[in-house]
Amino acid sequence: MPTLSTPPKVYLAGPEVFLANAKAMAEAKKELCRQHGFVGVFPLDADLALEGLPGAEKARQIGLADEGLIHVCQLVIANLTPFRGVSADIGTAYELGYARALGKPVFGYTNIAADYRQRAALFRATKGSWPDHGDDASVDMEDFGLAENLMLDTGIRESGGTLIRMDVAAGSELTDLQGFERCLEQAAKLVW
Amino acid sequence: MPTLSTPPKVYLAGPEVFLANAKAMAEAKKELCRQHGFVGVFPLDADLALEGLPGAEKARQIGLADEGLIHVCQLVIANLTPFRGVSADIGTAYELGYARALGKPVFGYTNIAADYRQRAALFRATKGSWPDHGDDASVDMEDFGLAENLMLDTGIRESGGTLIRMDVAAGSELTDLQGFERCLEQAAKLVW
Repeated sequence: MPTLSTPPKVYLAGPEVFLANAKAMAEAKKELCRQHGFVGVFPLDADLALEGLPGAEKARQIGLADEGLIHVCQLVIANLTPFRGVSADIGTAYELGYARALGKPVFGYTNIAADYRQRAALFRATKGSWPDHGDDASVDMEDFGLAENLMLDTGIRESGGTLIRMDVAAGSELTDLQGFERCLEQAAKLVW
Repeated sequence: MPTLSTPPKVYLAGPEVFLANAKAMAEAKKELCRQHGFVGVFPLDADLALEGLPGAEKARQIGLADEGLIHVCQLVIANLTPFRGVSADIGTAYELGYARALGKPVFGYTNIAADYRQRAALFRATKGSWPDHGDDASVDMEDFGLAENLMLDTGIRESGGTLIRMDVAAGSELTDLQGFERCLEQAAKLVW
């Protein structure tokens, strides 16, 4: 029989899987989870036997395993720091929507405090449009002062979660864990 | 009593909401839906009284309405053409994950055929990293030949959906609807 003291599991969504120091990032996040009474679950934690499989089958097994990990976790904390463009990592956004539809509390943090509209304007000013599909889009739709596309902001808040926005030291945007820890502090205030 | 001939509703996910011609795009997609036996539901279709509300409350009502529209639709077709960076629109990815977790078939199309890895490499070569967080990330994790982050590719395929990848005329990447129509053709083969 599970005891009431079983720590809640947190799915650690974010672009860390793409970083050269992915494993160290996972360990650092898991240690912070432990300190706040949670168990961190990293997307690469599933023990899959992928060697020798075709790439598409590897991808399929990883994708299904990660969906499964979201199911077994009680909450999600997502690193929403912009990644390869104006917005958060696309897989992280998918996972946030996935967890939200399952009714789980979802938390997020971004290490770039500028709002979505400011970032979109800055991107256009410094990078143009990319790919080059011309004068592609208005940003008026997003003049809400939100950190991200409103689906993500709304999903987080309505789920019972919190979205932390802060600026960090230049160059540490993808690795700074202050925002992550603030999410853990907020999550620990809920009753588990 | 609903009749068996009630056409299935398709949630029209994509960055079209940000385009200057959003309404025309919505109408064009809905017409194609009609031709293939579906009813298209656009994110802006919810009849919300937003005037005079603070921005955050507007955003909240739009976000919740769009989640509700996904619940009442039988399937989703998402425009995954890269938008403001290497990947698809972030709100679209959230909605895809949301619908997938609800067990709905999700379809996607992208009007840029290059795979995720190629696009990430091209982005770095032409734009550097953005925001400037240094030598941020490997792309090795994504050497699967997939159109997008594996969560999206996997979610689409495992849901019973299809992901259409094609190149279109330069400048029409965000508006060309051939891939959308191919999704409708595939969706029409399912039993509704």
